[in-house]
Amino acid sequence: ASSAHPIRATLFPGDGIGPEIAESVKQVFNAAEVPIEWEEHYVGDKVDPRTESFLTWESLESVRRNGVGLKGPMATPIGKGHRSLNLTLRKELGLYANVRPCYSLPGYKTRYDDVDLVTIRENTEGEYSGLEHQVVRGVVESLKIITRQASLRVAEYAFHYAKANGRKRVSAIHKANIMRKTDGLFLKCCREVAEKYPDITYEEVIIDNCCMLLVKNPSLFDVLVMPNLYGDIISDLCAGLIGGLGLTPSCNIGEGGIALAEAVHGSAPDIAGKNLANPTALLLSSVMMLRHLQHNDKADQIHNAILSTIAEGKYRTGDLGGKSSTSEFTKAVCDHL
Amino acid sequence: ASSAHPIRATLFPGDGIGPEIAESVKQVFNAAEVPIEWEEHYVGDKVDPRTESFLTWESLESVRRNGVGLKGPMATPIGKGHRSLNLTLRKELGLYANVRPCYSLPGYKTRYDDVDLVTIRENTEGEYSGLEHQVVRGVVESLKIITRQASLRVAEYAFHYAKANGRKRVSAIHKANIMRKTDGLFLKCCREVAEKYPDITYEEVIIDNCCMLLVKNPSLFDVLVMPNLYGDIISDLCAGLIGGLGLTPSCNIGEGGIALAEAVHGSAPDIAGKNLANPTALLLSSVMMLRHLQHNDKADQIHNAILSTIAEGKYRTGDLGGKSSTSEFTKAVCDHL
Ligand SMILES: CC(C)[C@H](C(=O)O)[C@@H](O)C(=O)O
Ligand SMILES: CC(C)[C@H](C(=O)O)[C@@H](O)C(=O)O
Repeated sequence: ASSAHPIRATLFPGDGIGPEIAESVKQVFNAAEVPIEWEEHYVGDKVDPRTESFLTWESLESVRRNGVGLKGPMATPIGKGHRSLNLTLRKELGLYANVRPCYSLPGYKTRYDDVDLVTIRENTEGEYSGLEHQVVRGVVESLKIITRQASLRVAEYAFHYAKANGRKRVSAIHKANIMRKTDGLFLKCCREVAEKYPDITYEEVIIDNCCMLLVKNPSLFDVLVMPNLYGDIISDLCAGLIGGLGLTPSCNIGEGGIALAEAVHGSAPDIAGKNLANPTALLLSSVMMLRHLQHNDKADQIHNAILSTIAEGKYRTGDLGGKSSTSEFTKAVCDHL
Repeated sequence: ASSAHPIRATLFPGDGIGPEIAESVKQVFNAAEVPIEWEEHYVGDKVDPRTESFLTWESLESVRRNGVGLKGPMATPIGKGHRSLNLTLRKELGLYANVRPCYSLPGYKTRYDDVDLVTIRENTEGEYSGLEHQVVRGVVESLKIITRQASLRVAEYAFHYAKANGRKRVSAIHKANIMRKTDGLFLKCCREVAEKYPDITYEEVIIDNCCMLLVKNPSLFDVLVMPNLYGDIISDLCAGLIGGLGLTPSCNIGEGGIALAEAVHGSAPDIAGKNLANPTALLLSSVMMLRHLQHNDKADQIHNAILSTIAEGKYRTGDLGGKSSTSEFTKAVCDHL
């Protein structure tokens, strides 16, 4: 990675606390002298017919052009005639894998100090097909769709990720004892890919058992790969183990190598604009974006500064039991650089 | 409840460790002088055409006649042309609600000491419809079915249970932000029932958030009611919080007031016949059966004896880190009566 050409990245500050925590990322990147130019895009105030959502076409084009982006929380306005912002992004940018590393943060105590795993969630199909209808009055059905293409693609990504990050085991999470055909196809694809990675241990774990094992002994797991809904559930469960969504980064991998890093917590309208929000999840997500760009030195520097600030414990936001403001915490991270 | 007429109950010892832990229940019931006659039924050695499974027609008739039963673990033999034993029981006996109380056991240390909740799972439909097919090569779909009838029935049961057991809050768990119609119908039914119980707080929690909250702070929850798959996942997660499936009882409520209490752990073939199994889940399930029959005195006696034995810590089976055999643990429970 060279600093001669600055990185161009799309930034979606999002709403609620989004702008404050995005400001925190900008300050930390400045302090770390990351050569970056942000293209900022906000959620529009009317539905863009080309996206059928409040997301503007230009903002999607920006991510496609830059290949990388960072996204804060976005609350989809209530009402008909438009699509969810998050689902639109996943669909339009083909964000097929949601990657969430989840590790115990030194110095921040929860019931667990032994978490170090990565969930990789298929992000485009499964229970999120949107295909539902009423069969007769009082009987409704929804379709779960599993395809060979999407399953292979996310499985490939999971094994590739495991290998690139020195991880040793991939667990495919499923309920194929009940959904033999859909989850069965998912497993079949994972097995096919697993054969190409003889150095990585491959196992299959039924989702109910997986959740039980995760709360008993999360150190059993390394990389987990799974269909959409299981990924939604398990990634939040894992976030809970280490303190919540305010602390867990994520990155969405899309078609053509697009990477959209994302803080997956909510927009917390109750504390928005009050300089109280915890920017950690967005900061750690921005680190994932830098790693994706192979700016590993800057990524390491910022990552260590965030972790040291939390470990030190002097500056913590309210959600972690502290009294610091967003800007005090941010300054502390900058000082640790 | 009178002891003049003995209880007649069906007993499915099941396989693997099933017979040993069923023996433990019989001994404890003897020691507690529970007036009971067990009708024992084993899984057959060939498919019964009337049940399309290895379960015999007679055994189902026995549960229907007695109205109550107790079931150990049953592993469905692998092969085609027959149905899963557990699913056959649920279907044929109309076991529409699976009730699992889950509480921290005094003296048995896990990462949690603040669990006291009950999961109530819809047990007949949802993702377990068995309706799956390949649309075109590489594209498979499965149907999730939600009906008003089954949703109302399980919601009614949940509120009834909450009221009868002095519980204050019912949380409906869902993913209606994605599955608007199916999970939406489930919620609609829960809301309808909730209106009839003004003294019970009703809330709705999205499943991913629910899992995060459960691992962070399980004391937030009281009674949880949910569609089939979410119940499968969350009940196992909750079991993990307090030590695993070897410690959690369950009872299935069926049409016409049938109650089939059930240890939901596996048949553990590796330790079967070795006098090593932990009978706690089946014992606690038998207590649920007694409570269903309103034999509350006997239920309390046995319940307290089991909890005291575990709390004392002198006799514990291998799964709990002890060295006791099944029969030593059973004797200790009898001695505590
Ligand atoms: C907001 C919601 C649609 C979304 C999901 O279910 O995917 C969220 O839970 C997530 O994990 O990003
Ligand atoms: C064995 C399996 C079919 C079953 C289920 O998924 O319902 C089990 O996990 C349970 O919870 O009883």
